[in-house]
Amino acid sequence: MTIGGEHARIARLAAIYRGTPSRDVADYGIDVAIGDDAAVLVPPPGEKLVWTVDEQVDGTHFRRDLVSLHDVGYRAFMAAASDVAAMGARPWCAVSSLVLPATLNDAELDELAEGTREAADEIGVRVVGGNLARGPALAIGTSVLGTAKRALTRSGARPGDGLFVAGALGLAAAGFRALDTNVHDARIVLAVAAWRRPRARREAGLAAGASPHAHAAIDISDGLAQDAGHIARASGVAVVLHAAALINHGGLDLMGASDALGMSSVELCLYGGEDYAVVVAASAPIDGFTRIGDVRDAREMPNGARVYLGDWNGERAIDEVGFDH
Amino acid sequence: MTIGGEHARIARLAAIYRGTPSRDVADYGIDVAIGDDAAVLVPPPGEKLVWTVDEQVDGTHFRRDLVSLHDVGYRAFMAAASDVAAMGARPWCAVSSLVLPATLNDAELDELAEGTREAADEIGVRVVGGNLARGPALAIGTSVLGTAKRALTRSGARPGDGLFVAGALGLAAAGFRALDTNVHDARIVLAVAAWRRPRARREAGLAAGASPHAHAAIDISDGLAQDAGHIARASGVAVVLHAAALINHGGLDLMGASDALGMSSVELCLYGGEDYAVVVAASAPIDGFTRIGDVRDAREMPNGARVYLGDWNGERAIDEVGFDH
Repeated sequence: MTIGGEHARIARLAAIYRGTPSRDVADYGIDVAIGDDAAVLVPPPGEKLVWTVDEQVDGTHFRRDLVSLHDVGYRAFMAAASDVAAMGARPWCAVSSLVLPATLNDAELDELAEGTREAADEIGVRVVGGNLARGPALAIGTSVLGTAKRALTRSGARPGDGLFVAGALGLAAAGFRALDTNVHDARIVLAVAAWRRPRARREAGLAAGASPHAHAAIDISDGLAQDAGHIARASGVAVVLHAAALINHGGLDLMGASDALGMSSVELCLYGGEDYAVVVAASAPIDGFTRIGDVRDAREMPNGARVYLGDWNGERAIDEVGFDH
Repeated sequence: MTIGGEHARIARLAAIYRGTPSRDVADYGIDVAIGDDAAVLVPPPGEKLVWTVDEQVDGTHFRRDLVSLHDVGYRAFMAAASDVAAMGARPWCAVSSLVLPATLNDAELDELAEGTREAADEIGVRVVGGNLARGPALAIGTSVLGTAKRALTRSGARPGDGLFVAGALGLAAAGFRALDTNVHDARIVLAVAAWRRPRARREAGLAAGASPHAHAAIDISDGLAQDAGHIARASGVAVVLHAAALINHGGLDLMGASDALGMSSVELCLYGGEDYAVVVAASAPIDGFTRIGDVRDAREMPNGARVYLGDWNGERAIDEVGFDH
């Protein structure tokens, strides 16, 4: 259902989303895209579907004084695609449901959609449908379908597995903090870019999905401490994160941002969200991933907690709290 | 991505959406439902997917003084499922993205979700995932996946086809008008019910999809005049709607509502939306459908218009305007 007189806007969006994605892999099986009651797709035979939806709301997930509409569209797409990538699936098609305030003009709508198109292109996804509605605040709902021979859930981690990560940890959170507190410093440039333009970990996810050693996976949207806790609880295990490995993995970019903001690198890694890194529990290393911890038998851990941080003081349980939007 | 501290709410929703749908037909191929990064589905071999999204926003599509949260959840689901039904597809699974104002409490969230669950049950659909986000106004984004051997698009109507409808026309619009203008009259009881609890035309859609005579279809969300125009333009034809057939099809319910509101039955049929009737262009009658018009060669029509109304005065072009939310 569309708002009255919005057919011209649907045509604008269809023009932006039309055209060949930059990766040919995703451009298969699309019988009908934007312009009918629904999209019509032919799924690849023998594959499962992996399906998610994410919503980004003005004032909750972004502030228009901190980020361009192009980046809002880009970020919204990546947040949704990340869920599909983290299950080891190949992102395929998306639909985009936009709630638009009456003040948003056509040029602004184009800018938003072009950001989404750019992100979809990078991930090899075609936007095949959507919806326009009017509302008091800009909101972007993005649903992504992916395909996979098998899907990595949160629930397969086994004691003895390593915990591996692909993608930044804490960097986007540092960037958001810098923008929010108006810190300008050469050391946070990459962190700000990480927050404005996060990237779903398509290749890493596919590598994990293809590895017989990978047992469970999740994307880090709410912070490592909380999301590692999701794997631990779903799998009935405990996880120990290594502080030194986190700092090492974060590298100079994170240390620079941490210095500029006066925050600890390890805290940024544990509690910063929106990097959309992928964390995998696996019995052997996977290309593109760095080891940051271990999976343990929960019954052998001291106090019944699920997530521990290991450093020179030993291993202590940490709170599974996350990034609050 | 979820708002911080909302895991308990996801568990509440998962409990509401769990359990066997009342129609067993849809409960296949669901490997992973709510609780992981994404749902995992096994599509039926050899079938196409039909995929849509719809969004209902407080203040635009409904007003909480006119409708219960249960009905809001019900309506939001049916609006989305209707797009899938109107392509002749079997609705299968859904994801629900909720934007919740801070004032909405757990009991209200349950009521909303129970309305969605009831509608999903009626249509034989399982809700397999979703998202929770905070925002200034309640908004319900519903994405529905269906499956079909073939999908009926808007673009296959041929001169010589009849135009057929299943479901009410104008009744929901009469109900909304009665609520909005505070009219209380025994003659509008069914119209109010039609607006509060519209029903996606699953069986009619499946009958159309299975008929070799059906060439094109659409659901009436914005009013017959506009949506018949979509079929006409997409198919490169013109359509003539018969006033007497519309009045006949609307029956006593619509005539009563029309009398009580002082509005013409034909105008309600042409310009009233949100009944989610299905209109099909077909070369022979289809079970459950009533004939309301003809498909014509556009070049043989007098003035280049696409949609005409035929009555005792002859055939005249009518405006393809729709229901403005």
